[in-house]
This record gives sequence, structure tokens and C-alpha cells, in this order.
Amino acid sequence: MDKLTLIKVGGQIVEEAETLQQLLSDFSQIDGHKVLVHGGGRAATKIAAQLGIESQLVNGRRVTDKATLQVVTMVYGGLINKQIVAGLQALGVNALGLTGADLNYMRSEKRPVGEVDYGFVGDVKEVDANILSELIAQGVVPVLAPLTHDKKGNLLNTNADTIAGEAAKALATYFDVTLVFCFEKKGVLRNPDDDDSVIATINNADFERFVADGTINGGMIPKLENAFEAIAAGVKEVVITKANEIGKNSGTTVK
Amino acid sequence: MDKLTLIKVGGQIVEEAETLQQLLSDFSQIDGHKVLVHGGGRAATKIAAQLGIESQLVNGRRVTDKATLQVVTMVYGGLINKQIVAGLQALGVNALGLTGADLNYMRSEKRPVGEVDYGFVGDVKEVDANILSELIAQGVVPVLAPLTHDKKGNLLNTNADTIAGEAAKALATYFDVTLVFCFEKKGVLRNPDDDDSVIATINNADFERFVADGTINGGMIPKLENAFEAIAAGVKEVVITKANEIGKNSGTTVK
Repeated sequence: MDKLTLIKVGGQIVEEAETLQQLLSDFSQIDGHKVLVHGGGRAATKIAAQLGIESQLVNGRRVTDKATLQVVTMVYGGLINKQIVAGLQALGVNALGLTGADLNYMRSEKRPVGEVDYGFVGDVKEVDANILSELIAQGVVPVLAPLTHDKKGNLLNTNADTIAGEAAKALATYFDVTLVFCFEKKGVLRNPDDDDSVIATINNADFERFVADGTINGGMIPKLENAFEAIAAGVKEVVITKANEIGKNSGTTVK
Repeated sequence: MDKLTLIKVGGQIVEEAETLQQLLSDFSQIDGHKVLVHGGGRAATKIAAQLGIESQLVNGRRVTDKATLQVVTMVYGGLINKQIVAGLQALGVNALGLTGADLNYMRSEKRPVGEVDYGFVGDVKEVDANILSELIAQGVVPVLAPLTHDKKGNLLNTNADTIAGEAAKALATYFDVTLVFCFEKKGVLRNPDDDDSVIATINNADFERFVADGTINGGMIPKLENAFEAIAAGVKEVVITKANEIGKNSGTTVK
């Protein structure tokens, strides 16, 4: 099978002109098939505030009322996605920006109201990897915004890590997928105060040990759980690294 | 050649939930290959105002400074485009929202500064009808936002009538194209005070006569000039009608 690199970058990287340009340059130099998934939470919060809409986050997830859904549709689906697409085209990458509604490639269902009512937030139910893989085989580079739809006419806000994980799992039928999660550190750190103490590779047994002894904690736990879930579902490898380390074979490889 | 219907609707229709839903329903019932092009100027003006950005229009065209470009990228490329795509998917239409940057399907150049500096406004230079026609042949329905790019990383604001005309002309190599311009009247009127005085068909000789005697004037003149230009470039017919008359064989047919 052909190799495919699927890179997820958070809002911080894509919201500043300088870091975005560096990312697009690094991304454009990756050989072979590739997909980019982006966040945009900070920009959404900023534009929402300018429009007089207060952002409410619960457990790091945005509560998405109707007005907030309009904001994220504008910011994720329009502003950020299209700037990335135009930037990649300038670098000769044949980018195509997509929400889950486009080509119906990712369908979700509105999250049931539990302890928290997250509003218009979608849990992914179905990914059409066939349509994505056909585009990719033709040299197209999908740029995925963190928005899905319920196929009943509603767009739904969906976490970008989830979009990346679900797309990677679905594409694993067609490609040898490397899923790269970029965040603010160089990888999973053995010592949180030492940015160079990156754990090069980690398997499930290591993970359980590191969680038990407290080396791995907080937000890194769900991130790694997602990574192991992707591996279990057929993704070849998951790399956790810093955006400016893309393509440098650094970071933490989850196997 | 297969028939293709390319419909352009203005902002007014797509910005109100009720008229939008009617449009999408009517559009979904059109047989065969189709493309939808939308505006969104009123919504852009409203959101710009909420963000404290004053909209400046010269000869009906928006002067697009950097802040305004961000607004139209959000509103045209995100809010309106993605709501239409999600709405069409709910009706079983396999919609794909595109700006000119996506798949590099429409490249433009920033308009030279003349008497007016329109800012980030693009004049269309190149349309990749091949990529559009391949998608259309696969059953995809492109939904085109009024944004292009210069392939140097800049998105550019481009009039939706222009997008529709340029896409129709380029697609005329692959399909028998009917280009439908929807506006607020049922067609070109013989008597502006009588909404039922629609001129059923008009050719170039009729047009010159009607302009000379004042029957046709104002904003209808450039609209019809565009229509005749499209016909001259191979588009089979151009229809000028009201959005709620789509599919009813009414309106003015330009031949």
C-alpha cells in the first residue's frame, strides 16, 4: 500500500501568519500522499468575543450554541481552512478544503445531552474513506476543518483530534497511514521541565507504566489513548511532535 | 454532450433560512448535472458591521481591504457555503463547496488600481474546467463561493455573477450549459412596474433596441452584456429569472 501522512495541527500554529507559513512550507515538503487537519479554537474565541458571543469551554471542549456554531462555521470552514488552502496552492500543493458535509465525507450525530449540554457538537458516525482515497490517489491534498454534519442539514462542531483520528482509521484500509499530532512540546516528555527528554517510542505497556508512575498525566492521557485506539484500528504509526519538527523523524512514536 | 445547469443566486436568497430552504429544495429537483454559485454580500455587510468594519461599495462592488477580505472569507467561504452544502447533502445532493483556491479551479489577479482601489478583488484569469467536469461527471455538485485566489497565497473577492459566467464559459467545452441568473424580478421586464411583463426571449438585436428606447437600463445592462458574452463563448442559453421560478421554464431566455 502507498504511504499516507496525516498531520493534525492545533489552532495556535495556524492562527499566526509566521508559524502558519512555516508549517505550510514544512508540510509542502512531505513526500507522497498527505492530509492536513487543522483546529482554530483561539481564533474562534477571538472572533466570537468581537461579535459579543461569550465562549464557554467544558473539559477543554467548546459548548456550541447556535451563535457559536455560526462562528466556528465561519472561522474553521472559511477563514482558517481557505487561508491554508490558498497558502498550499501557492506552494504547488493541490489542496482541497473540506468539512464533513462536503462530499458527505464525515457524518456525525449531535452529542446526546448528558451532564453537560455541548450543543451543536457532533460525534463521528461514518467516514467515507473511499471518496477521500480517490481524491488522494489523484494527487489532491485534503485540508480538513473540524466540522462535520448530521446529513439532516446541520453542521456540527467536532474536535480536530477526533477528525484526524477518524480520518486516519478510515484511510488505513487504503494506505499505510502515519498520523502525526502536533502540539506545543517536542513529544511525550519523561520530565515535563526538560523539553529534550522526549520518549522516542512508546507502546501500550510503557504507557500503562508511565501513567501508573505519574510520568504521563493530564491532557496527554486522552491524546495517547486516542493514539493507541488508532493503532488498534489499523493506523501504522502515530507520532506526537512539535509542528516545527515535522518531517524531522523526531517526536514520540506510538506503536 | 450532457446538459448542465449552472444557477447563480444572490445573497438575499441564501441569507434567509426560509428562502434558502426553498431554493435548495427547488435546486435539488433539477435533473442532471448542476452547479450552484452563491453571493452573500448582505451577510458580509452585517457581520462586518458587528465587527466594527465599515463596508464601502463603489458601483455596487465591495472595496475589500484586509479586514474585509477576512470577513468575506469567513462569510462566503465558511458560513454561507457550508450551510448550503449541508442543506443540499440533507436533500441527497452530493455537494462540494469550493473557492477558487480549492483544487486551484479558478485563478485570478488582484485588480489593478485605477480610479478606484478595490483592494483584494480578483479578476478571473484561468478556470480549470477539467477538474470541475471530472467531479461533475462523478455526480458531484460544486457549490461555488465568490472567492478566487492568485496562486501566490492570497484569496481574492470576486463578484458571484463573474464566477458564474466564467465557470459557465469554461464548462461549455464539456457540457451543454444553461446559465441561470436569479434576481428579484421574474425576468427582464418590458414595463418595470408590471412584474408580469417578462420578455420571454431576447437576442442581441432586441437588446440593442431595448437599450436605445430605454426599456432596458441601469443594472440590467451589464447583466445582459455578461449573458451575451457567455453565449458568444459557447454557453447554450442564459436565463434571467426569480429564484422561486427555478425549474419552471419561466423568466427571460437570452439567445
